[in-house]
Amino acid sequence: MIEVRNQPPAVDYGRVFAQAIDRLHAEGRYRVFIDILRNKGAFPNARCFAGHNGPKPITVWCSNDYLAMGQHPKVIAAMEEALHDVGAGSGGTRNIGGNTHYHVDLEAELADLHGKEAALLFTSGYVSNEATLSTLAKVLPGCVVFSDELNHASMIAGIRNSGCEKRVFRHNDLAHLESLLAAEDASVPKLIAFESVYSMDGDVAPIHAICDLADKYNALTYLDEVHAVGMYGARGGGISERDEAAHRLTIIEGTLGKAFGVMGGYIAADQTIVDVIRSYAPGFIFTTSLSPVLVAGVLASVRHLKASSIERDGQQAAAARLKAMFEDAGLPVMATTTHIVPLMVGDPVRAKRISDILLAEYGVYVQPINYPTVPRGTERLRFTPGPAHDEGMMRDLTAALVEIWGRLEMRAAA
Amino acid sequence: MIEVRNQPPAVDYGRVFAQAIDRLHAEGRYRVFIDILRNKGAFPNARCFAGHNGPKPITVWCSNDYLAMGQHPKVIAAMEEALHDVGAGSGGTRNIGGNTHYHVDLEAELADLHGKEAALLFTSGYVSNEATLSTLAKVLPGCVVFSDELNHASMIAGIRNSGCEKRVFRHNDLAHLESLLAAEDASVPKLIAFESVYSMDGDVAPIHAICDLADKYNALTYLDEVHAVGMYGARGGGISERDEAAHRLTIIEGTLGKAFGVMGGYIAADQTIVDVIRSYAPGFIFTTSLSPVLVAGVLASVRHLKASSIERDGQQAAAARLKAMFEDAGLPVMATTTHIVPLMVGDPVRAKRISDILLAEYGVYVQPINYPTVPRGTERLRFTPGPAHDEGMMRDLTAALVEIWGRLEMRAAA
Ligand SMILES: Cc1ncc(COP(=O)(O)O)c(C=O)c1O
Ligand SMILES: Cc1ncc(COP(=O)(O)O)c(C=O)c1O
Repeated sequence: MIEVRNQPPAVDYGRVFAQAIDRLHAEGRYRVFIDILRNKGAFPNARCFAGHNGPKPITVWCSNDYLAMGQHPKVIAAMEEALHDVGAGSGGTRNIGGNTHYHVDLEAELADLHGKEAALLFTSGYVSNEATLSTLAKVLPGCVVFSDELNHASMIAGIRNSGCEKRVFRHNDLAHLESLLAAEDASVPKLIAFESVYSMDGDVAPIHAICDLADKYNALTYLDEVHAVGMYGARGGGISERDEAAHRLTIIEGTLGKAFGVMGGYIAADQTIVDVIRSYAPGFIFTTSLSPVLVAGVLASVRHLKASSIERDGQQAAAARLKAMFEDAGLPVMATTTHIVPLMVGDPVRAKRISDILLAEYGVYVQPINYPTVPRGTERLRFTPGPAHDEGMMRDLTAALVEIWGRLEMRAAA
Repeated sequence: MIEVRNQPPAVDYGRVFAQAIDRLHAEGRYRVFIDILRNKGAFPNARCFAGHNGPKPITVWCSNDYLAMGQHPKVIAAMEEALHDVGAGSGGTRNIGGNTHYHVDLEAELADLHGKEAALLFTSGYVSNEATLSTLAKVLPGCVVFSDELNHASMIAGIRNSGCEKRVFRHNDLAHLESLLAAEDASVPKLIAFESVYSMDGDVAPIHAICDLADKYNALTYLDEVHAVGMYGARGGGISERDEAAHRLTIIEGTLGKAFGVMGGYIAADQTIVDVIRSYAPGFIFTTSLSPVLVAGVLASVRHLKASSIERDGQQAAAARLKAMFEDAGLPVMATTTHIVPLMVGDPVRAKRISDILLAEYGVYVQPINYPTVPRGTERLRFTPGPAHDEGMMRDLTAALVEIWGRLEMRAAA
């Protein structure tokens, strides 16, 4: 074919897209979704649909419905009632027809949970982070955001989309954070964004010490409590409640889809800040509001977990028990101070292989965690035992892992 | 107070936030959410909670649950069954424990609805637009996006967040779009992003003509059918089905929260493109998946509307009837070719005043539409009659509007 100089070759879109997929296969991190259905009332039991004849019974070890509240009778009853009282969806944005009484009640409940003046609902925790951080930094001209290096993708997206300057501090490193804060002028608006429980490593941020720095350098603070709300504190207000630090934080963000067992996200803060986000954040304004059915379920869940610690205690006990078993068996369990139980593998192909064997041979479902969810070379399996995972299940799981580890000739941790 | 030169005044965050809110009050566009609950089985009847003693009965005229599918017995039954079968939430991201059989089934159903190889669910239509557009343009290096000037905020966010070049073409203006396309080199990847039904004006895009330009200039096409899915086409596949253009579009995007009556969003496209978005879009990857209860409801809704046109026909008839009544009464109804019935007011304070009177004196709920949802100076009231708004309700509404228009001494349309 003769190439004509003035007519460069047209774009071959198909090739570009196919190459993007090929790269994932080459790195061993192409994701295959496991098709499951949980059995309500019998969680962590579930059914798996792919690669065999008919549904196969499995045990789920990687759910973020940490306290099994998604199956709680009060939650189910509240959702059923709302379904019959008002119907399936809200039918509009919060401003145009989609502001139901359930939404108003839940926002009051969440504000109270964190001891804040107000709260604001979003369709997910992801959207609450993205919408709030991107809007906040835009409202404060010249704002610089100080972001922990392990912050969740949704926070990173929000900070990036704000278009403001970002300084990344080493994970939980107060000296590094302070050196970055000190380098900025006092006239520069500052925001420190971090998480309480880092969900893939299971460690916890030094909230008070970060708030001390915020005070010293006149910075706002934004805390993602997604993996801690419902789980820590006497009423489930998160690590900031447990550590009695909630009043020191400018904004606390949480999800309704993990310990609360349903779906959605929120922020809690003072009235003016909530009003600013409510009024300016496109991700809040221009979208159909949460279904009232979900909101009713969350209301029941939050209220229950404010009054009951049985689920939290059961979950913590199960996590401690599983960690101890893994350690006794010489498995490379990562040291964590929380409810998260990660086993380090360090390679995406191997992590997927172990997960595949567990599902196919042992009916155990635990998803391999690979890049970009964790840094390359730190691929792992992440177990989330709940109050309903019993001693027998844990013994079976540990034995299975020891067998597979041996089979794949992997070195156990020292 | 003495100002020290080396210590510029610290930022007063409270003042910045308060000023942001004051600006909205000054412009008359501070939003007050009306607190309502719909009465299932009796929609458009609802209850309103604010500013009076106890709930007050109202008629909703601004819901985007266009076909009242959020109240359909099949949808309610499907949601109830899923609630009892699997519980409230999915408990995880699509990759980690949150991929249920309902999700897999619904994606197949939506792919079929649009005659595409595959579909992908998101937590909302907003997120589907933001995540897909931002990711697509990143995967195609140097991509230029051609965007209709009236595109929805979620599309604008996605294009902006992609960081790629954007050319805005005048609304539905083919000549302008062509001149912008022709100005780019053939080697530049191109994407034309537009909507089928523009929801605030009620007009429709010339899909075939835009696809002709896409063919001529080797551009991809992205069509937002949010206000058309379920509503147009023999099976509810949208304007692209009605106009037999679905096969010509690269990506079709829709919501599950308007005509389908529940909540969520999706794209439909060929397998490779869906796989690219599934694998690379942070807004898809890093978030708890849609509650299986919602997904079950949408499955029932989509399947019903594929087979039944009664709801679509009833809605179109109601919209035509209301438009005719408004015209006969000399009200400034905007000319539309779709189911949307907007009355132009042209001023935010007046639009809010009419809406307030309607609610307080007539029990009619219609939200004023102001900036940034529509351009300044084009503030309006937007009515969405459905199959359940009867002749009597329409007569009452028209009479109320005529009375208020007279009271506020507004000029009726010529
Ligand atoms: C730290 C953190 N923040 C935010 C999110 C997003 O929350 P959601 O799943 O409700 O979107 C997640 C996980 O999904 C998370 O791990
Ligand atoms: C044109 C358009 N696209 C997308 C959306 C967002 O869809 P969803 O409400 O499902 O987030 C909307 C309205 O909300 C819209 O009007």
